[in-house]
Order: sequence, then C-alpha cells, then structure tokens
Amino acid sequence: MTQHGHPTIADVARRAGVSKGLVSFALNGRSGVAPDTRERILSAAAELGWSPSLRARSLSVGRAFACGLVIGRSPDVIAADPFFPSFIAGVEDEFSVSGQVLVLAAATPGRQEAETYRGLAADKRVDGVILSDLRTGDERIALIGELGLAAVTLGVPDVDSPFTSISVDDGAGIRLAVDHLADLGHTDIAHAAGPFSMLHGRHREAAFEEAAAARRIRSRVVETDFSAADGARATEQLLDAATPPTAIVYSNDNMAIAGLGVAQRRGLDVPRDLSITGFDDTEIGRHLHPAITSVSTDARGWGAAAARALLEAIAGAPPDAIDLPDPRLVVRASTGAPRA
Amino acid sequence: MTQHGHPTIADVARRAGVSKGLVSFALNGRSGVAPDTRERILSAAAELGWSPSLRARSLSVGRAFACGLVIGRSPDVIAADPFFPSFIAGVEDEFSVSGQVLVLAAATPGRQEAETYRGLAADKRVDGVILSDLRTGDERIALIGELGLAAVTLGVPDVDSPFTSISVDDGAGIRLAVDHLADLGHTDIAHAAGPFSMLHGRHREAAFEEAAAARRIRSRVVETDFSAADGARATEQLLDAATPPTAIVYSNDNMAIAGLGVAQRRGLDVPRDLSITGFDDTEIGRHLHPAITSVSTDARGWGAAAARALLEAIAGAPPDAIDLPDPRLVVRASTGAPRA
Repeated sequence: MTQHGHPTIADVARRAGVSKGLVSFALNGRSGVAPDTRERILSAAAELGWSPSLRARSLSVGRAFACGLVIGRSPDVIAADPFFPSFIAGVEDEFSVSGQVLVLAAATPGRQEAETYRGLAADKRVDGVILSDLRTGDERIALIGELGLAAVTLGVPDVDSPFTSISVDDGAGIRLAVDHLADLGHTDIAHAAGPFSMLHGRHREAAFEEAAAARRIRSRVVETDFSAADGARATEQLLDAATPPTAIVYSNDNMAIAGLGVAQRRGLDVPRDLSITGFDDTEIGRHLHPAITSVSTDARGWGAAAARALLEAIAGAPPDAIDLPDPRLVVRASTGAPRA
Repeated sequence: MTQHGHPTIADVARRAGVSKGLVSFALNGRSGVAPDTRERILSAAAELGWSPSLRARSLSVGRAFACGLVIGRSPDVIAADPFFPSFIAGVEDEFSVSGQVLVLAAATPGRQEAETYRGLAADKRVDGVILSDLRTGDERIALIGELGLAAVTLGVPDVDSPFTSISVDDGAGIRLAVDHLADLGHTDIAHAAGPFSMLHGRHREAAFEEAAAARRIRSRVVETDFSAADGARATEQLLDAATPPTAIVYSNDNMAIAGLGVAQRRGLDVPRDLSITGFDDTEIGRHLHPAITSVSTDARGWGAAAARALLEAIAGAPPDAIDLPDPRLVVRASTGAPRA
C-alpha cells in the first residue's frame, strides 16, 4: 500500500493471500467465493481501511450499488420500534463492507407504498429491496416481480414468491417463553400480541395459543400496535381483570418495559406478583431492574443475513430459503414462580 | 380526481385552492411559497394520497430527489442511540410528503467517511446531505463544499461553513436540569457526559460546569460513549465513591435508564437516595417507574426542520441559520429532594 494513498484491491488481495479477481468477486457480492475465503477477504479489506469507489464500480457494471427498505408503516415506527434500528444496523454491517448504500423510505398517506417502489425501480435508484412486515396475501410480491427488482423477504409469504426468504421461527421463541413460565408454575398467562394484520403478529399469537393449550394454561390475548403506550394500555386492562394473569408474554421488549412500569406503579412486585417476558432482547431491557427475560432473535444478524442474500440475488444467484437459528430465551430477573 | 386513478397536481391544487404552479413549487421544496400556503398544499396532498412520480420529476429537473445522512459512527449507534431513529423519523415526516428518499450510510473501517461522501456526490445519488455529530475543526465541511453538494449542519461548526446550521441549544437543557436539582436542594451533582470529541458532548459538559458553578454545586464528570453500558459503568463508578453524589445528570435517556437500573439493584430509592435526569425524553423513559425527568429537544422536529432547510438549500435558496426552540425540562418522578 502506498504510504499516503488509499488501499487498492491489490493490497487487499496481498493481505488475504488470494487473487485480485477473487477480491473483486467477493467485494461485489458475487457468488462463487467460498464463505471462509469471502470472510478472509472482507476482514482484510476492513483491516486495511479499503473503501470502494462507488462511481468506478457503478460505471463498470451498470449497477446502482444501493438497496431499498420501504417501511410500510408510519415514520413513528422507526423511532419507536427497536427492531428497525437494530435490523438497519445489521444491514449496514454488511453494506459498509461491500460498498452499498441503503435507501430508506417510510410509506405514509403522502407517499403511497406502490408508487415508492415504482420510483425506486424506474429511476434505477436501487438494485434490490428488502421486504419486511409481510401481510396476508401481500401484493408487494407481485409488484416487485413486475418491476424487475431483486428482492428478499423477511419470513415466508403466504402467496407464491420468486424471492429468497430469510426467516426466524418467532413462534419457537414464544413457545420457549410459555414453557419457561409453565415450568415456573404459572397456569394463567396473557399475551400482549402485535397487530394481526402482519403475518408475524399472527404467527406469534398462534404459537402462543398452541403452547398454552399444550401446557393446559388459561390463556388470553390483547392485540396491540407494538408501541410502548399500547403495551401499557394492554397491561392496565389485564391487571384490571377480576382474576388477573400471573404472567404476561409481550411480543416486543418495548411493551414489556412499559408493562413493567405499570406493574411497579401499582405496587406489584415483579416477578412475585407478575412475571414478564419480552421479545427482541434489547440492550436497555438488560439494564432495567429487574432485567427483562426476553426472546432473543438477533435482529442485527437478521439484517446482515438479509443484506448478504440480497447481494447474491442481485448478482443473479439468489440463495435458497434461509432459516436463521431458532430464537433463544434469555432468562433474567423479571420471571419467577407465582405466589402460592 | 378520476375515480380509479392517482390524484394529480391539479387535484391537489383544486383542494388547496391554489394554482398548479404553486403546488409544484411547494411539493418540490422550492422557496417563494408562504409557510401557511405550503402547509395547506402539503395537507391537501396528504389527504388525497397524492404521491410524486419520482421518475418524471427526476427527468424534468435533473435532480436525484434523494438526500444523504452519513453517520460517522459505527452501525452500533443506529441500534443503540435513540436520537437517530427519532431524527430519521422526522426527516421521513418531511421527505415522505415531498417525495424524497433518504440514503443512509454508517461509516466504518471498511467504508471511509470521505470516500462515502465522494461516492454519493460523484454518482449524483443525492442532491444534498445532513451533517450530524459535528467535531472540532470538522474536515467534512470543506470536503462537502468541494464536492458541490448542498448541505445543512446540525449545530454550528467551529470552522467557517457555507451551510445553513439548524441548532438546538442543548446547553440550555443541561442548565435547566442543574437548576431543577439545585432548587430541590442538591449540592453535589455528577454529569455522565457524552464523548468530548463531539462538539455537542463538549457543549453539554461546559454548560454543566458553568451551571454548577453558578449554583455553588460540587460537580464531577464521567465521560462516556453515550451507550447504556457506559451509562451503567459511570453510575457504578460514581456510586462507589466515598461520598457519592445525590444526583446524576445523564447526557441521554439511554444512560439514565441504565443508571436507574444500577441504583435500584443496589437497593437505592430513586429519587430519595439518588435523583436522575435524562436527555432526549424518549418514549420508554416516560413509562418506567419512576418515570424519568428528561430534557426534551424534539429530535423528530429537528429532523423535519433539517430536511426542510436542506430542500430549500437544494433549490438554491438556503435559509439563514435556524435556532430551534430551547429544550424544555420535563419533570417526572425520578427527581426529588435529597435525604436530609
């Protein structure tokens, strides 16, 4: 490497001990590079501080070197739902090494979702998109196919799809939470569920009911919009019941944290009077007192995996459907045996 | 509006009671439209579900209709610092109406910051950029000027800058927190400060020391990286002192929430044994028990204001420096009089 210049592909190749061609393949997200070789090349590039010249690459291969994420909810959700920042950080973990940028848009009444996808495709602003929050009979699948964009979906759609899905079995996570509470002796458990209009909201609720039935648990459910405020509202409603549940399974950490506040404000001891589980295993949930027992799905790893799969799809070699490792339950102080 | 078609500029003009030309001006972020007229036009567009044809507009005026935000920290910060998701939501509040998209990139060792700006400019991927986390003698100002990009800065740089600054007096927020605690009777207050390499980190610390001196408070400071984990570490360190402070002013809510957990785990009563103030006024801080007293700077409004100013700059009419309203202190249950 020249002392004052930027490191080149040749520098990266020398450090990784491979050919320049292979470096170029790996850095462009092309298939045909063995995973460990690819890792070695990306590490060497990162260590040298190599960065892509977007212009040179864009001109040479006619690509935008950009991918899109259109969040089909209001801008609120970007601020309020910790999943998206973590997921986007994971996408950036990958894109920052492979020289892509992320084009982000939130769909609102002022910018219809379908028009946004059309604009991204027609202007060749992006080479591909990541589809999140799948819905029943999701019409975006067909639209994106028509537009000729590459894509990956988070989860498996309930319609035919030509796109690689990257999935986490979040139902398995909910089952872990229910089984953990049942093992502690709980027989009356509620679910603060996400919106049923989203496939993952329905998946988690179905998994909850199934797991509860298998353990002969009395179950009840409150549907929410995933916000902390709605988590607090659901908790108030459940605790106002004549015989309140002894445990609540929340479909995200934000709601679980708000629920913890509601319970403590009522003078309840968590976990002796009420056990609480979250979903997402956010950093802040680990620092609270009591720290929140939570289902860990590695949103950041999911983002990186989706970004990698999308780059392969853009390169013309979409991988087969990817099932990420099952979520784990991280048991902390917010769950315990119910009072006798 | 045709019954099955998309609403047009003419439909928006009719609803807002203005000319088509004025609608076009307003929707393109051009200057020369009175603020209330502009608001009326944007509301009419939102109500009708009007959405821009990016392609048509991009071809007609030779613009990218995209703006960039290069976060000069690792992807971690996107996941861990609640400021960015709120700020980005505010940018989207504005862009989703005016038909722009946001190009997001986190700078890491694998993608040097300067190269990222060069790539965005050379490929005409963006019309302008938002500069955040200003540093001492920030070299990005000159670089972006050379690249011919429009820009706005969050805060006023300490070097000459041709760009409009959009500022919040965060020092005023810190002073409010110190004065509130002094009024409650605290005489020994610590500051869990942000990184001094960032201008706003240093501003807040200077404001803290000045306010403490004015109130004859014994002050001490721990520098952090703004993460919850570092907020917890700073709290442990402060509480381990022979005579710990009776109050801690945290430079963000994330650290304040982690500090609350540390104090409660030690069996301390917040606020009787330790008062806590945060910064950012996050939604989750409001739901905790005790709810967090916090400095509210309206990160989302800041994002929207920055996006609007950038669109004006891109249109060739950069506004004068903008000072947003001073932060407010939202007093909640985490602050109280110290034990006698």
